Amino acid sequence: MKIALAQLNYHIGNFEANMRKIIEQIDAAQNQGAQLVVFAELAISGYPPRDFLEFDDFIEKCNQSVNEIAQHCNGIAAIVGSPRSNPSLKGKRLHNAALLLADGKVQQQANKTLLPNYDVFDEYRYFEPNHHFQLVEFQGLKIALTICEDLWNVDDVPMYRINPMDELMPLAPDLIINIAASPFHDRQYELRKNVLSKNAQKYQLPIIYVNHVGAQTELLFDGGSLFMNAQGEIVERAPFFEEHLLMIDITKIRSTFNDKTQHHIALIHDALVMGIKNYFGKLGFKKAILGLSGGIDSAVTLALAAKALGAENTEVLLLPSQYSSDHSINDALQLAQNLNVKHHIVPIQEAYQSFETTLQPYFQGLPFGLAEENLQARIRGVYLMAFSNKFGHILLNTSNKSEAAVGYGTLYGDMNGGLSVLGDLYKTQVFELARYINRETEIIPINTIIKPPSAELRPDQKDSDSLPDYEILDQILFAYIEERKGPSEIAAMGFDKPLVDRVLRLVNTNEYKRHQSPPILRVSSKAFGMGRRMPIVGKYLN
Amino acid sequence: MKIALAQLNYHIGNFEANMRKIIEQIDAAQNQGAQLVVFAELAISGYPPRDFLEFDDFIEKCNQSVNEIAQHCNGIAAIVGSPRSNPSLKGKRLHNAALLLADGKVQQQANKTLLPNYDVFDEYRYFEPNHHFQLVEFQGLKIALTICEDLWNVDDVPMYRINPMDELMPLAPDLIINIAASPFHDRQYELRKNVLSKNAQKYQLPIIYVNHVGAQTELLFDGGSLFMNAQGEIVERAPFFEEHLLMIDITKIRSTFNDKTQHHIALIHDALVMGIKNYFGKLGFKKAILGLSGGIDSAVTLALAAKALGAENTEVLLLPSQYSSDHSINDALQLAQNLNVKHHIVPIQEAYQSFETTLQPYFQGLPFGLAEENLQARIRGVYLMAFSNKFGHILLNTSNKSEAAVGYGTLYGDMNGGLSVLGDLYKTQVFELARYINRETEIIPINTIIKPPSAELRPDQKDSDSLPDYEILDQILFAYIEERKGPSEIAAMGFDKPLVDRVLRLVNTNEYKRHQSPPILRVSSKAFGMGRRMPIVGKYLN
Repeated sequence: MKIALAQLNYHIGNFEANMRKIIEQIDAAQNQGAQLVVFAELAISGYPPRDFLEFDDFIEKCNQSVNEIAQHCNGIAAIVGSPRSNPSLKGKRLHNAALLLADGKVQQQANKTLLPNYDVFDEYRYFEPNHHFQLVEFQGLKIALTICEDLWNVDDVPMYRINPMDELMPLAPDLIINIAASPFHDRQYELRKNVLSKNAQKYQLPIIYVNHVGAQTELLFDGGSLFMNAQGEIVERAPFFEEHLLMIDITKIRSTFNDKTQHHIALIHDALVMGIKNYFGKLGFKKAILGLSGGIDSAVTLALAAKALGAENTEVLLLPSQYSSDHSINDALQLAQNLNVKHHIVPIQEAYQSFETTLQPYFQGLPFGLAEENLQARIRGVYLMAFSNKFGHILLNTSNKSEAAVGYGTLYGDMNGGLSVLGDLYKTQVFELARYINRETEIIPINTIIKPPSAELRPDQKDSDSLPDYEILDQILFAYIEERKGPSEIAAMGFDKPLVDRVLRLVNTNEYKRHQSPPILRVSSKAFGMGRRMPIVGKYLN
Repeated sequence: MKIALAQLNYHIGNFEANMRKIIEQIDAAQNQGAQLVVFAELAISGYPPRDFLEFDDFIEKCNQSVNEIAQHCNGIAAIVGSPRSNPSLKGKRLHNAALLLADGKVQQQANKTLLPNYDVFDEYRYFEPNHHFQLVEFQGLKIALTICEDLWNVDDVPMYRINPMDELMPLAPDLIINIAASPFHDRQYELRKNVLSKNAQKYQLPIIYVNHVGAQTELLFDGGSLFMNAQGEIVERAPFFEEHLLMIDITKIRSTFNDKTQHHIALIHDALVMGIKNYFGKLGFKKAILGLSGGIDSAVTLALAAKALGAENTEVLLLPSQYSSDHSINDALQLAQNLNVKHHIVPIQEAYQSFETTLQPYFQGLPFGLAEENLQARIRGVYLMAFSNKFGHILLNTSNKSEAAVGYGTLYGDMNGGLSVLGDLYKTQVFELARYINRETEIIPINTIIKPPSAELRPDQKDSDSLPDYEILDQILFAYIEERKGPSEIAAMGFDKPLVDRVLRLVNTNEYKRHQSPPILRVSSKAFGMGRRMPIVGKYLN
């Protein structure tokens, strides 16, 4: 039997567009001789629909889409994910369902049993888990139709008390189909392959796995839909970061697939480019603006933006102050020229002077300090937003994860932006990404990469004046943020205890700043944002 | 038997302070002859601890606190809420537990069965539900020890498939004790009383109910801990919005309690004052600053801040532009004088002129528009943050729910602030609150209340130029936000369909702005913030 795996980029709540895309692929699959085409989890609504699921009107629109798509299923069947009402009076109002559409209507429904409710996931907020286990039958094929997390409870210390596959095995399935919405992070593909392989081998069944591709605000879906044989080997796999219709024959199960793993930084690069592109595309914007300082963060952000949106849609402001070094301005100009993006130089001294004069009676006699540093960053923010508002750009934020973590940034200043591109990359990773961007030719001026990082908000300032070296800082932050280690555990790794305490205190006391951050493209296993939820008034470790 | 209900204001993660407070109340209860003292849900850690629960170190500190408190339980027992490790290898790693402490140690443990995971709640993110039902016995008293949501599954269309009390009833309990963390909204007390009364009557048991009091960032806990008889009548109740140790005798069950319900707006007033006070107190700040425009929102915010923090800790900037009317400045001055708060007048024309001159080459030939309006709001934001940074104030945000909903506000301008005081009050409610504040004497100048609302960002501007009347707008917003009605349902209430569509589109397309809002003190059943989670790139109804 020929089955098509449709790996698509949906748009949350855009029912017309999602439906059109799905119907197109049903037609394409049929033209290529498929008997069945499989779409991803909640393909109808896009994933994650979040609290739109609380609107009856939204669910009604999902149902209408399903019915219209079903009418296109003649001579071919489709499996598609959609929210469905829970027919029982008890429990949550919805199921996260996989529907088999054939002969013009919904034939069978399988509901998700394991509802992820950790990290970026909130599924138990909306869905009642499945309690009845049955196979889906199609042309004699007995399918264990499962949804994403349903296959993920294979740890030695399992998060859930049951395994849906254990319940389905007595019914003797021929094949597992898993429709998924599995977001990217830099180690996710290895994890996912391992999980699928464990299932294939444990249950001795081949697996068809269909994932989303594309970005939904901060969540990036890498695709990588695949067909795996019962030995846990990949037979075929769709590419990453692009839409694809993968045709497979379930009788051809010999694996010759060469799964060349890309380097993490290359995957991150492609994920971020897709993230920018889709954020703009789905909001209906074309043009980006950002402030170019000559430093590494804005340089890398610009290179990614130009790649995602085209140089012609990317514009930069250079906003020098009296503390900006000549090399910063030159490096910024050189980069703008290398990428062929439009730039303007808008010095901030005059505005700064105006504020300073007005504030003088109040600030009189007090030393230059944080207020004056922030003032510069905020004036830059005002100029950037003036351009953004006037010409319809989205401002891109250039903060990195290290500085977001310790609060080394100005709220309503350089923390501004519609989207944070690098906010999930530690500073040391930003350098790595810069080198990757330069892998063939020097796009980012080498001086930007080798000079010591500085905010240039006072004379001869360096980041290392107030922060530990990023090599050290990033390791402490990783242990705390990604690995959730406490202060003693981190000190035991070989770091100075007072330094560890200071860094952790900075992370916790700056929660209030991150609360007002733009959404951050997620490329790690623990990003700031929807996957990390902290109390602002908490007093832990501070 | 005498039992003490300890209604306390905990501080999330501040183990020392919480423990000290708990031990003090154990001593106080013992001095007053109590055999048992009951503390709230997760009292040890504060509620909600959120992702701090993912740190082993945090759980270890909870355990240490519990052990230290247990050592103070001699001659008196205590029931206290704390996260506890799940001893099983299967399921989530923690339980949300109620512990009976007596004779120096933990004697018994009851775990929460129903884990709220909707609105502002994320409990299934952390906790494994209870699967084993048993009573807690203390001095011959058989207690159905339950935790908050455990009693809330009494709807005709229940959210959960089981009721813990149904499981416990065959064991013949004498009494229900429910330890809770039930946050305030303006109808919550009526709901809560009704739910508890249903339980008392259904199971024919008296109920001891102990809630938190105090604010944790946006969540406001009103207290109102109580003792109810088996007829569902309140025998005794602790006050709202203050710490209290309520002594009850479980043999005295005749109800003479006169439960005078306060008006909603009075409750909201007290909740907001507590919210401001605790936000500052728990972060270790004393002083607030805000921009006073002469309009109703900043006037009400100031009155609340002065009440919460004291006039001596509250300061305002008047930031007039060429578009500010004389009456606005006069009204603002009059209010500052009425409240006796320090004010400064910082005109923004000069800074505006400076930006305009610099931008002139780029904006040349383009009409005055949104960019110029926002520029004024952002200059004000810069001044306010300069004062905030220089003198250690927290800037209070003055946006209301109506304008936050439709995006009528400037990001990085008047949307700035550490805390949004009125962000969960529709404009019509802000007026109501102003009248309540003036109930005895004219604090807020009457002219501020009766004049038509205006942002004063261009000549003779009024809110009604670009928005429908707030009387209409607020009803549409309430139907969409609080009641989750779709466009057709709202139009069917009698509103113009194109207007409904326009308002809903505005709400959805401005999600990106609200994403960067400060935390909003929650006083309604559906506030912007952690209780309402929407996709930014969603395309639903826009």
